Amino acid sequence: MAEEDSLKRTDETTIAELRELVSEFVHERNWEQYHTPKSLSEAISIESAELLENFLFQPDSHLPADIEKVTDEMADIFVYLMSLANTLQLKSFSEEVYRKMIKNRQKYPIEKFSGNNYSKQ
Amino acid sequence: MAEEDSLKRTDETTIAELRELVSEFVHERNWEQYHTPKSLSEAISIESAELLENFLFQPDSHLPADIEKVTDEMADIFVYLMSLANTLQLKSFSEEVYRKMIKNRQKYPIEKFSGNNYSKQ
Amino acid sequence: MAEEDSLKRTDETTIAELRELVSEFVHERNWEQYHTPKSLSEAISIESAELLENFLFQPDSHLPADIEKVTDEMADIFVYLMSLANTLQLKSFSEEVYRKMIKNRQKYPIEKFSGNNYSKQ
Amino acid sequence: MAEEDSLKRTDETTIAELRELVSEFVHERNWEQYHTPKSLSEAISIESAELLENFLFQPDSHLPADIEKVTDEMADIFVYLMSLANTLQLKSFSEEVYRKMIKNRQKYPIEKFSGNNYSKQ
Repeated sequence: MAEEDSLKRTDETTIAELRELVSEFVHERNWEQYHTPKSLSEAISIESAELLENFLFQPDSHLPADIEKVTDEMADIFVYLMSLANTLQLKSFSEEVYRKMIKNRQKYPIEKFSGNNYSKQ
Repeated sequence: MAEEDSLKRTDETTIAELRELVSEFVHERNWEQYHTPKSLSEAISIESAELLENFLFQPDSHLPADIEKVTDEMADIFVYLMSLANTLQLKSFSEEVYRKMIKNRQKYPIEKFSGNNYSKQ
Repeated sequence: MAEEDSLKRTDETTIAELRELVSEFVHERNWEQYHTPKSLSEAISIESAELLENFLFQPDSHLPADIEKVTDEMADIFVYLMSLANTLQLKSFSEEVYRKMIKNRQKYPIEKFSGNNYSKQ
Repeated sequence: MAEEDSLKRTDETTIAELRELVSEFVHERNWEQYHTPKSLSEAISIESAELLENFLFQPDSHLPADIEKVTDEMADIFVYLMSLANTLQLKSFSEEVYRKMIKNRQKYPIEKFSGNNYSKQ
């Protein structure tokens, strides 16, 4: 994939394409041996904490002046998540998301949770 | 969106469609007020730890017998990540991923990192 | 140790006593094999996220009505931390804390950081 | 407190002394305003991930060559934990630990869990 092309893409990109992007990166470096489900879960936890660090001791409304610090960590989390989907050989990660969202709709019915902070329930 | 349809989808689903799915879920419950960048970063950290919990005190090769325990947590992380992309009004989250992968390729050149565990470098 | 006695103790308890309490608990169950530095670090991360979950989507001033939910997680983190000190056979964990506090004082001199949120620096 | 003295201490140090050490550090910088329960929980999560990072993509037996990288993160977690005990004005943090250990003994009776990885139960 030419890198020049990649930056022209928008969110019309499919999960399949992004999984392939990550798979290629891992394969080129012969890193499949390190990308076990357990290690990838650790990596996701670590990158999530690096995302959170941008907001530590800041008010709830805070955004870092340099937004790239935030989007870089978001991308890291996503890349490890796609690598985990690849390692687990999930037929369709999107399907897992749709399935979970059905569960979420049942758990949080609109009439009961509208405007209600669900962690208070 | 009919829920019957959703489960037929595959990873041909685009990031834009998944962002819209999450946006609708949040909007229907009037939860935008809770989905600040800081709170979403906390939520991602918490869900990541729940993913990791499936592997605690297990060998590196471990997979839970019930794979849905893993894919549910992966979906939770992804949903909060897409909600963060929405809150930040990112024009294209995929673009951020492609941009970060270019950085990663520069940081980990194939010739130097092939088969090498990069955390050892 | 009689459990009746233990609840009479106050914060005059030493780190040595608490390390011993944890060591005994782990040893009685023959769990040393699971308490590797890596696994204990994972456990600490997971318990920390459970602590944080008490505050998710809440204002900065929030405290759960049931404070025991918070102190239970704090104790879990502490217990794994002491088990890690034991596994690493640290001669004195307190010494490590004093040493790190000296570093902290040098990194955050009072005259420069008084009243200043250091993550902004 | 003279820094020369501090390094002579051993694990005979009490929790009360360590809480006082942290309290003084926070007070001197007028940082009580930042040390809310929520923020301290975030800080503990972030430091835990930094501890875990020392073991990422490594075998279960791994220890970094430079052990200070590990003990520094352990101290950071402990310091924030003591600051949380201070913010919550816990009469005795040790008591909370003893109380939780009683719960743990009931949850994991020796006869049932000896040599058994409890996450498998």
